[in-house]
Amino acid sequence: MNERDALRRLAADLPRAGDDAAVVDGTVITTDMLHERTDFPPGTTRYAAGWRAVGASLSDVAAMGAEATAAVAVYADDEFDPDALAEFVAGAVDVCEAVDAEYVGGDLDTHAEFTTATTAIGDVPGADADADTGTRAVTRSGASPGEALCVTGEWGRSAAALRLFDRGTNAAVERANDLFRFTPRVADGRVLAGAATAMMDSSDGLARSLHQLAEASGVGFALDRDAVPVHPAVDDVVGGTDAGSAGGDERFELAAHFGEDFELVCTVPESELDRVRRACPAGLVRVGTVREADHGVTADGEPLPDRGYTHG
Amino acid sequence: MNERDALRRLAADLPRAGDDAAVVDGTVITTDMLHERTDFPPGTTRYAAGWRAVGASLSDVAAMGAEATAAVAVYADDEFDPDALAEFVAGAVDVCEAVDAEYVGGDLDTHAEFTTATTAIGDVPGADADADTGTRAVTRSGASPGEALCVTGEWGRSAAALRLFDRGTNAAVERANDLFRFTPRVADGRVLAGAATAMMDSSDGLARSLHQLAEASGVGFALDRDAVPVHPAVDDVVGGTDAGSAGGDERFELAAHFGEDFELVCTVPESELDRVRRACPAGLVRVGTVREADHGVTADGEPLPDRGYTHG
Repeated sequence: MNERDALRRLAADLPRAGDDAAVVDGTVITTDMLHERTDFPPGTTRYAAGWRAVGASLSDVAAMGAEATAAVAVYADDEFDPDALAEFVAGAVDVCEAVDAEYVGGDLDTHAEFTTATTAIGDVPGADADADTGTRAVTRSGASPGEALCVTGEWGRSAAALRLFDRGTNAAVERANDLFRFTPRVADGRVLAGAATAMMDSSDGLARSLHQLAEASGVGFALDRDAVPVHPAVDDVVGGTDAGSAGGDERFELAAHFGEDFELVCTVPESELDRVRRACPAGLVRVGTVREADHGVTADGEPLPDRGYTHG
Repeated sequence: MNERDALRRLAADLPRAGDDAAVVDGTVITTDMLHERTDFPPGTTRYAAGWRAVGASLSDVAAMGAEATAAVAVYADDEFDPDALAEFVAGAVDVCEAVDAEYVGGDLDTHAEFTTATTAIGDVPGADADADTGTRAVTRSGASPGEALCVTGEWGRSAAALRLFDRGTNAAVERANDLFRFTPRVADGRVLAGAATAMMDSSDGLARSLHQLAEASGVGFALDRDAVPVHPAVDDVVGGTDAGSAGGDERFELAAHFGEDFELVCTVPESELDRVRRACPAGLVRVGTVREADHGVTADGEPLPDRGYTHG
């Protein structure tokens, strides 16, 4: 049983667990675990790790269109280096401040590998506190054919950071740590809450996100590859190590398949598009159109595989 | 730097992090991490593990005098055994139902050791949603000399469970799993919210809890050893392995020093005592009196050490 099948099973048992965050009485709540081995490459500062780990949970709050209120974290390591802990907490505090939320502490634990479990909560303004669910939260299931497919920000940022960590020079690692500290799209999510029919964050990459939105909404998507806004750092790392004829494919690979960019992917009715595009602080770009389910998920007319990054 | 020093440092940076749970705008939030090696002895079912892990966070909500609303968990293991996962979720769902909260899912992760990170949230009824803190939450810092020192439930339950797990027979392990599934004292916490001046849960044991309450409130405590309600299972395990003259000491050791009983320890003004004693579903017993700080923390007049369990 792989993780996706297991998640499906959990979702079947728990009707509220299939979205980026659960909604209970107008409060959204979401939790994640990150590890040194899989999530924090050598060179990642504890400040960037605290920022990124807490940011990942705040991004799930953003994806529901909720206001982020608070976050907590468990910090587990094989020993308690006070400076490392203080750095982690500073990163957690700063990412919360960046989205007007509050970091309110957590728990310490002993663990062979540096591991952190983060939880963020948020409010869905306008949700009826007595209702069984906060109905104004934006789920993954409301997209309709004809609507615009949109994304926030620029893509491939984390992929570029990983390559810079690999490069290992002081300058590359410093830039990688900067790239790792993304701004959770809470402000954009609040703008989109009044307009988006379906929304999620892109932790698994654009391609997988589109397949998940398609399945949840019962629709297809026609993606325009060239419309996907690519982070400038991607051109630097592709130019450095993968120049030549494969550059275009590699660029799209990093932007659309790599994942962990924590941008928002959403569907917006045409009539709302101009208004929300002007209001999203991170920028909102139309990258395609919602189609009927039998269209499937395509990029420039070709099927877009439901997969993460594959080394070219 | 040990865990307690590190926690103190975290608390100094984060003024809201020094209690059982943080309070933000009338919402309490608390998070914990538990591991197979340290928290789930061989023989612990995944159902009991799910119950206990989520219960530990719900107990922190109870200790604030809040209503528990929801919980989430990260479930991490080296492989995804679907039956183990389903059992864990069932335990998590059931402990939430036991306290009128809702288990709303979480995250899956891969980890060499079975590890779970749980988060619970709750509401502080009557807290002003606009106030910077939910002022009706019960903290650790409000005890005054002359008040009654009280505890819920019966003590030594988890100590007895550990010995039964060690015994290893089917019957002993089954009973140990039953003992591991404690009821978080949310209903009692709600009763006490209107009367207790200071409160916490007893995850570190009664002795350590008293020292923590004493430090936070700037008071001392005079504990009456014989008044501490001891769980009947303690007599079974002490009788079986530690009979003889040391039995009394061993009994108190398991009840007061072992910890992980997740009962509430609180201070209540004399005038409120009868009312709350009648209203607490788990039972509320007076075990001593709040004294001035220079009295220290005593049991039957002798200093009560600030320590966990020591093998006799």
